[in-house]
Amino acid sequence: MKSVIGIDIGGTITKIGIVSKEADILKKTSFRTKDYKDFSSYINKIHSCISKITSDNIEILGVGIGAPNASKNGTIETPANLNWSGNLNLVETLKKKINLPVFLSNDANCAAIGEMMYGNAKNLKDFIVITLGTGLGSGIVSNGKLIEGYDGFAAELGHFSIKNNGRLTGLKVKGGLEAYVSATGIKRTIMYMLSKYMNDSIFRKIAFNDLHGEDITKAAENNDFIAIKAYEYTGKILGEALANFVTFSQPEVIILTGGLAHSGKWILNPTKISFNKNLLPFYQNKVKILLSGLEDKDSAILGSAALVWKNI
Amino acid sequence: MKSVIGIDIGGTITKIGIVSKEADILKKTSFRTKDYKDFSSYINKIHSCISKITSDNIEILGVGIGAPNASKNGTIETPANLNWSGNLNLVETLKKKINLPVFLSNDANCAAIGEMMYGNAKNLKDFIVITLGTGLGSGIVSNGKLIEGYDGFAAELGHFSIKNNGRLTGLKVKGGLEAYVSATGIKRTIMYMLSKYMNDSIFRKIAFNDLHGEDITKAAENNDFIAIKAYEYTGKILGEALANFVTFSQPEVIILTGGLAHSGKWILNPTKISFNKNLLPFYQNKVKILLSGLEDKDSAILGSAALVWKNI
Repeated sequence: MKSVIGIDIGGTITKIGIVSKEADILKKTSFRTKDYKDFSSYINKIHSCISKITSDNIEILGVGIGAPNASKNGTIETPANLNWSGNLNLVETLKKKINLPVFLSNDANCAAIGEMMYGNAKNLKDFIVITLGTGLGSGIVSNGKLIEGYDGFAAELGHFSIKNNGRLTGLKVKGGLEAYVSATGIKRTIMYMLSKYMNDSIFRKIAFNDLHGEDITKAAENNDFIAIKAYEYTGKILGEALANFVTFSQPEVIILTGGLAHSGKWILNPTKISFNKNLLPFYQNKVKILLSGLEDKDSAILGSAALVWKNI
Repeated sequence: MKSVIGIDIGGTITKIGIVSKEADILKKTSFRTKDYKDFSSYINKIHSCISKITSDNIEILGVGIGAPNASKNGTIETPANLNWSGNLNLVETLKKKINLPVFLSNDANCAAIGEMMYGNAKNLKDFIVITLGTGLGSGIVSNGKLIEGYDGFAAELGHFSIKNNGRLTGLKVKGGLEAYVSATGIKRTIMYMLSKYMNDSIFRKIAFNDLHGEDITKAAENNDFIAIKAYEYTGKILGEALANFVTFSQPEVIILTGGLAHSGKWILNPTKISFNKNLLPFYQNKVKILLSGLEDKDSAILGSAALVWKNI
């Protein structure tokens, strides 16, 4: 059976899967990205994962990789949310080890291709995918094509500055959107809410480093004041930003995916309220905000795999 | 000789020209848009201008029009900087009078097409044109194509909100970019500087309604403190906004055109300083800010004319 390998390099987790042409994930595995302090031991780990999940009865045609700060020429440049620095020659290094075609694109671009091939953006020509993981990534499709920019660094909306004197991102952008709207961003907001209010909260007992996204959803469901305030604050900022982004490319749909989007209504409702309040009159009722259509099937692996089907 | 008519509908001035395929403007005329309180008398004025400048030895193939808030179906919707309101059926109304093909697009999109065909964006696939007239317009080209969005209202960056509690635009957008960066925006900033500082200035003798863009350039050249502060403030905001826009489509070039751009270095220098200060590391030295390559030849008329050449 002919298949491809899709790899999603996230700031926290690296996911690897074997994907059929019909978008079935035949096998998958994952590991913690941050456990690998140098790039060459990380590449060795990817190589051993591929060896582990492949077998003789599956013919692998190529490998597609989605990664933060992927350039058009196969490298990762100055990644903000990864351990390694400099220009990392990912495609060439991996090709030498596995002797297969390797394709690389921005992780959020891969998510957008995945939604277009299999998810909630089927048949759409103008849409934006926002990935809410460790950071905030984005893939923008206009006229049916990815906006890649001059050398592949378009759609870096996590670094979009929303406040002149706001929180710093990993790239030292003042008020960068991902410092507010991402799995990390909402953890920072929990701290901010603990500073602002004196209400009781489960989060008075949990240290920043022990705090996980699912805890915030669970707390909101238990009516925790600080958790609810944090979602409202995050959604308000995301809605304002998305309304601004509409003035740029006027998408028909904006899709939210990734860890923070797993909270469902908790992030979606305040985002929609703020979005509609800030949307210009001539955009009203023309732009939908949706959650990913691929949440359970892993859009990132599918999108990375789609890169291969598109290119071979 | 075969030619086309290009019409630029601006908030202040309407310009009409006969344009050859080689981008020569054979004849042109203009009048004040704001003198026409109702839309039908405005259409009559356009008709009489066309009759005046055309002659038997020139064969007109069609009419191209650039206008604010042009939709994909030939209408102008809720124009913020024009006298008339509602959905104005421009293409159909004019077609009936002149019996020629009529094409309509957003005025800033026309400027972008003009720069791509004849100006500083020749051979470029990724660029942005910012028109600084009564308001702020924008035309965004990605992968060699205009970003038009779901129904033609992409690239409305004048309404992009830069401050939560900032100045109101004509469409009541709080902190909308054009409330700061446009011919009108810098007039408002002159008032703000007169409120903030007590320094002597020519502008203490000129009322808001009597103030024109050229006066501000002239005053800056005469070392007027208020004029220089106003350009610095405007350029700082424009540079921040442009650096943000790069995270969206990563253009190779950003072109400034229109009234405020005529001030040349006065707007360009503070914009570049602020732009470079706010640009992310992986964009440094990859994005140029230029003035229009068509300033003297009228990029707006040429761009509107180019619409016809493109479509017939």
